Amino acid sequence: MYQEYLKFAKDIALYAGKIMLDYYNVNYKEDKTIVTIVDKMINSYLIEKVKEKYKEHSVNGEEESYNKGSDFVWVCDPLDGTSMYVNHIPVFVFSLALVHNGEPIVGVVYNANENKMYSSIKGEGAYCNDIKICTNNKKLGDLGYKTNVEIFKNSIIDEVALIKELKTVSKISSIGSVVRSCMAIAAGDFSCDIFPGTEHGNCDLAASYLIVTEAGGKVTNLYGETQRYDKGIKGAIITNGISHSQILEIVKKYTI
Amino acid sequence: MYQEYLKFAKDIALYAGKIMLDYYNVNYKEDKTIVTIVDKMINSYLIEKVKEKYKEHSVNGEEESYNKGSDFVWVCDPLDGTSMYVNHIPVFVFSLALVHNGEPIVGVVYNANENKMYSSIKGEGAYCNDIKICTNNKKLGDLGYKTNVEIFKNSIIDEVALIKELKTVSKISSIGSVVRSCMAIAAGDFSCDIFPGTEHGNCDLAASYLIVTEAGGKVTNLYGETQRYDKGIKGAIITNGISHSQILEIVKKYTI
Repeated sequence: MYQEYLKFAKDIALYAGKIMLDYYNVNYKEDKTIVTIVDKMINSYLIEKVKEKYKEHSVNGEEESYNKGSDFVWVCDPLDGTSMYVNHIPVFVFSLALVHNGEPIVGVVYNANENKMYSSIKGEGAYCNDIKICTNNKKLGDLGYKTNVEIFKNSIIDEVALIKELKTVSKISSIGSVVRSCMAIAAGDFSCDIFPGTEHGNCDLAASYLIVTEAGGKVTNLYGETQRYDKGIKGAIITNGISHSQILEIVKKYTI
Repeated sequence: MYQEYLKFAKDIALYAGKIMLDYYNVNYKEDKTIVTIVDKMINSYLIEKVKEKYKEHSVNGEEESYNKGSDFVWVCDPLDGTSMYVNHIPVFVFSLALVHNGEPIVGVVYNANENKMYSSIKGEGAYCNDIKICTNNKKLGDLGYKTNVEIFKNSIIDEVALIKELKTVSKISSIGSVVRSCMAIAAGDFSCDIFPGTEHGNCDLAASYLIVTEAGGKVTNLYGETQRYDKGIKGAIITNGISHSQILEIVKKYTI
């Protein structure tokens, strides 16, 4: 059954990727417009397909939801990295997870630019284009330890002070897509992401939670706790696993 | 003559792009190794070609130089965005400028991932794949005003405090390649980049100076002054032009 859910999720992902690339180079005047169109098209398509195939399931999308009160919720961020997308930097992805009683059991992230399909079924490992992937084993302070932190206007942590401390022991980036960064962690490239969270933070993180965890990494909220992914989350710390407690100690100082 | 220099620069750029893509997905154990190989191959190739064709000219490369004491210096960053390159995020470019008496007169930046060749000859505008490009006209605080700031372990400005102030009036990213960010400014996507500078900062900025300036933007050092690009620079502020003085006022507070 999980395999069928995964196939369903991948089909939606391929559709989303096509839409994203179709509109990537369209000329437009206002930043928001194009993203809204792309976001909504993908989100609507998902709801339509879930209604067709899994009509008892709910959908929790960043743009639009469909609540059937089911234990099964398809949690989706149609386009993560919107600011990069509108600025023509190829760092944006589609994210979709099937969450059962708050826990992601199937997850797909699609990086259409590079035609990379990341996927996972609970208990069965993490894959990129069907090749098994795993996190790295770097500790904070090790050469090449890389942390991504997105900078928000209003955060639930003082992420700027956090960066000031972290930059002494890690390279820091802010690439504009937490989900893309999570896939870099799952694939063993990046080592950590600290995500202050947004209104629909669970939509961003649901698939990444599963893929990173299955790749050997660890994902908690900003306080080190596990959390549900079918409703709002308290940010997230995503690491390669081995460095999770080190990061947690540092983040603790900067939670507001 | 300038057209001939431009063609020469583009040929080197295409070679560099091929090398970058050839090695992009190679498996390797140590972060530094692959970058060193790619950097050196490109840098050596440039020196060899300059010796062949313009044997009176000097070369100032981030990896290797060749000083003939000429007024004409080919200033090159073989691979900008090395940290993204090793981590398989497609944000890295090749940069090459011909600098005459300290001033860039021909510049090329090649984004091999997206096959985008940015180029400029002094006084003749800026181009991406031969289509004219220009900066946007956003002011600080406008919707979609985007600033890129790279975060270094040791900086000549307090870039973390700077980000804290800037994030209230601009979106902030740190995409890992100042040159890629400059091309986003030249093309009207990003609005600003604040570059604290590195040892070979002129190698990063020489071509970007010309391309951004010819696209209607402005480039100065961190103190608002023009500077030579055939030797070390005092960082750089790169903007769409219209917002340069606003940014300068803010940066001024955080220079150490």
